[in-house]
Amino acid sequence: MDRRPIGVFDSGIGGLTVVKEIMKILPEEDIVYFGDTARVPYGSKSRDTIIKFAFQDSRFLLSKNVKAIVVACNTASAMSLGELQESIEVPVIGVIKPGAHAAVRASKTGRIGIIGTEGTIGSRAYENAIKKLYPEAEIIGHPCPLFVPLVEEGWAGTKVSYLVAEEYLKPLKDVDIDTLVMGCTHYPLLTRVVGDVMGQDVTLINPAEETALELKEILMEKGLQNDPENNPSYRYYVSDNPDKFSRVGSNFLNRDISNIQKVDIEKY
Amino acid sequence: MDRRPIGVFDSGIGGLTVVKEIMKILPEEDIVYFGDTARVPYGSKSRDTIIKFAFQDSRFLLSKNVKAIVVACNTASAMSLGELQESIEVPVIGVIKPGAHAAVRASKTGRIGIIGTEGTIGSRAYENAIKKLYPEAEIIGHPCPLFVPLVEEGWAGTKVSYLVAEEYLKPLKDVDIDTLVMGCTHYPLLTRVVGDVMGQDVTLINPAEETALELKEILMEKGLQNDPENNPSYRYYVSDNPDKFSRVGSNFLNRDISNIQKVDIEKY
Repeated sequence: MDRRPIGVFDSGIGGLTVVKEIMKILPEEDIVYFGDTARVPYGSKSRDTIIKFAFQDSRFLLSKNVKAIVVACNTASAMSLGELQESIEVPVIGVIKPGAHAAVRASKTGRIGIIGTEGTIGSRAYENAIKKLYPEAEIIGHPCPLFVPLVEEGWAGTKVSYLVAEEYLKPLKDVDIDTLVMGCTHYPLLTRVVGDVMGQDVTLINPAEETALELKEILMEKGLQNDPENNPSYRYYVSDNPDKFSRVGSNFLNRDISNIQKVDIEKY
Repeated sequence: MDRRPIGVFDSGIGGLTVVKEIMKILPEEDIVYFGDTARVPYGSKSRDTIIKFAFQDSRFLLSKNVKAIVVACNTASAMSLGELQESIEVPVIGVIKPGAHAAVRASKTGRIGIIGTEGTIGSRAYENAIKKLYPEAEIIGHPCPLFVPLVEEGWAGTKVSYLVAEEYLKPLKDVDIDTLVMGCTHYPLLTRVVGDVMGQDVTLINPAEETALELKEILMEKGLQNDPENNPSYRYYVSDNPDKFSRVGSNFLNRDISNIQKVDIEKY
């Protein structure tokens, strides 16, 4: 048994879709969340910069005595997970491998689509992870840079979001995929739009749920679970705009968020 | 005469629309540009964070021995100009006051619209600057957060950009403005779309040109102009992704960009 909290970081607010799954699957665990709202987004930035940011984010979480770190951000998982795992003592879990597992289990034809930020798609991280499990799989990735600002503007479900989705998803429809990985933490809020455009024969994968399941396995394996009777506490830290985080974050989490503090992340 | 360069900073690449005007109006001046591409965008972030970033950006430019600083970013101009001017020895010029002057000169009815980031519109900086010159003016501001990602995606002029513009500009059309300030450095690339949606009776104002004219006046007033025979040099610094800056920046500047270096801005 280990009473230390789980640490979760993301480029901003989207990682709360992962926190939501952890709360469901590991209801006895305390969580410390860090959202890098001063430097968001990560998706359009270079690998060197993402690695630097991911280490600062992780050092901050370690300063809160976490027993494991979940990299909720797909871009940071794609670009920095190996580096983090090599030099950090506690287990570090990303969202790519769990997402790849879920996609391989769901796909019948082996034609799997991936959508995400420029950084995630450019890294080919999902492609490599899926090919390890299923070498014959045909993977087609497509970046969707406007999806995040659409969700943050509250325009998911509008005519504009359908038009943008049709434009981005066309190359994926053309090759007749049967499974689509929603490879960015904001995309679960566009599930309906993406589902409508892709049609009901395509299974949409949200890596967040699978990530929470992998976290559970690792905690069990290493004897790191909390007391099952623990009444969990959730603390949130951001590098900018705690008020906006509280307001918009409630949408992602479907519950009120309090207990938010601002952090100068560049010091870590 | 003063042979030192002009310093220009922006949250990223958009400030090149201001550089373009400075090159035209002050062709003998050397320019050092800094684009904060590691922390872009500024428009959705808080005043405290923008002030901190603007001071780091300015300290970097001062380390390059600039004789004046142009804050090309509307959000940074709106939120940090006063603070910068108070503590920096060289002249610091923003884009808000020049934009306000141009709007007041252009407007016949006094009904003036402003579009920009959440930060710029929320600050009411344009409104205050216009009211000082023209107290009876009626100002209506509207944030357009999706315009920047649309331009960066290269989607200016597409059906999506028209649909988004119609949505954002509706409240401005409803009140029958005759002048519209394009209060974000990316927006000049949407001039055609915004012009089509607003109609030809509305004059669009790009503060960049007026800012370059104000810079020229200040240099003359203080005897800081360069030798008219000087063959100008242009140097570019970014906090991330010099390659992308070079590629996308050429679009903004209509000329090839070389001489780009990466800077660790958090050290300044």
